[in-house]
Amino acid sequence: MSRVRVHNFCVSLDGFATGEGQSLEAPFGHAGQRLHEWFFGTRTFRGMTGAPGGSTGADDAIAAAWSSGIGAEIMGRNKFGPQRGPWTDHAWQGWWGENPPFHTPVFVLTHHLRPSLEMAGGTTFHFLDATPQEALQRAREAAGDLDVRIGGGPATVRDFLAADLVDHLHVVIVPIVLGRGVRLWDGLEDLDHRFTVESVSTPSGVTHLTFTRP
Amino acid sequence: MSRVRVHNFCVSLDGFATGEGQSLEAPFGHAGQRLHEWFFGTRTFRGMTGAPGGSTGADDAIAAAWSSGIGAEIMGRNKFGPQRGPWTDHAWQGWWGENPPFHTPVFVLTHHLRPSLEMAGGTTFHFLDATPQEALQRAREAAGDLDVRIGGGPATVRDFLAADLVDHLHVVIVPIVLGRGVRLWDGLEDLDHRFTVESVSTPSGVTHLTFTRP
Repeated sequence: MSRVRVHNFCVSLDGFATGEGQSLEAPFGHAGQRLHEWFFGTRTFRGMTGAPGGSTGADDAIAAAWSSGIGAEIMGRNKFGPQRGPWTDHAWQGWWGENPPFHTPVFVLTHHLRPSLEMAGGTTFHFLDATPQEALQRAREAAGDLDVRIGGGPATVRDFLAADLVDHLHVVIVPIVLGRGVRLWDGLEDLDHRFTVESVSTPSGVTHLTFTRP
Repeated sequence: MSRVRVHNFCVSLDGFATGEGQSLEAPFGHAGQRLHEWFFGTRTFRGMTGAPGGSTGADDAIAAAWSSGIGAEIMGRNKFGPQRGPWTDHAWQGWWGENPPFHTPVFVLTHHLRPSLEMAGGTTFHFLDATPQEALQRAREAAGDLDVRIGGGPATVRDFLAADLVDHLHVVIVPIVLGRGVRLWDGLEDLDHRFTVESVSTPSGVTHLTFTRP
């Protein structure tokens, strides 16, 4: 059975995975780039943007696991773009550029459907109004024998965790206090009881938590 | 100038430093002992209870710093006992036994004063209705050249952090999701900007964060 995986999901000490005030210019609101600074220098991140080089230490080794064996991604609408309500501009094709880094089918959860978007490099965005279970079934069909990644944001990851659909969860604790935004952990009391949890801090200052099924 | 220090202050992934439903039998409410399990096996903890032995690895080395050079502690009322409102039983002398592990003056912040309690081993509890600044002045006078420890609970530590009175903050991230209780980080947006932060995970699974003045 293919697994459902979350990777490189960054939260602040106070549990926020994104700040307040998302906009076209600020995908993470007032958090800016602070949750992801540890990631930008890695070879994995640079590779996603087509840039050469980058660090190849522990942060990179852990981050690199995100793409291996993935056949489809499910993401919340706010990882695609900052719009709320009905779509008003179909010409805008999301934050991810002409050649998005996913290279698989991507299912975007939204109550406001629009036609699928076939991008360069193998990424196709499909827009889906569905429960986590329904979305996962669609994604599994698309992924074949491969795994399905839950890409975020926090509300989407939280919904899949609450429905106990996640097999592998990699969370990065970034030692900052955001104060406001969208929390990951709300409503997940005793989540740790369902997983084996491993922690490792790296020289960048972040701590990688890996939740796996026991 | 003596420093103001917080040590061995444990929080869950969702930022709770204590659970819901504190009572005489459950000082940490529904959290039980889950926030402190990493601590119980250490030589430092065992020494606090008069027991011999215990682990002497990294957890213990970091935990042991709590008592060195401390001349007074400030704690919130709920670290002394679970009562709310006026004291009804002066015969009950707190959770800490006849020989509390502090061995210094301890200032208990409460709106409900009561006579000081002189215990065995050098601990005297003084009850104080004061702002953080006022309490710190009293504690510094009692501590002489030594440092002052802010002992908790979360509301007390948070008040001292908000007032920018803390020089050294040691927080232990315990990889559990409590779901409810009292949060440490609320109202402390950008706290990390005032400190240099270091993170280290240990084999017990916790992560020690040290916030020091840059």
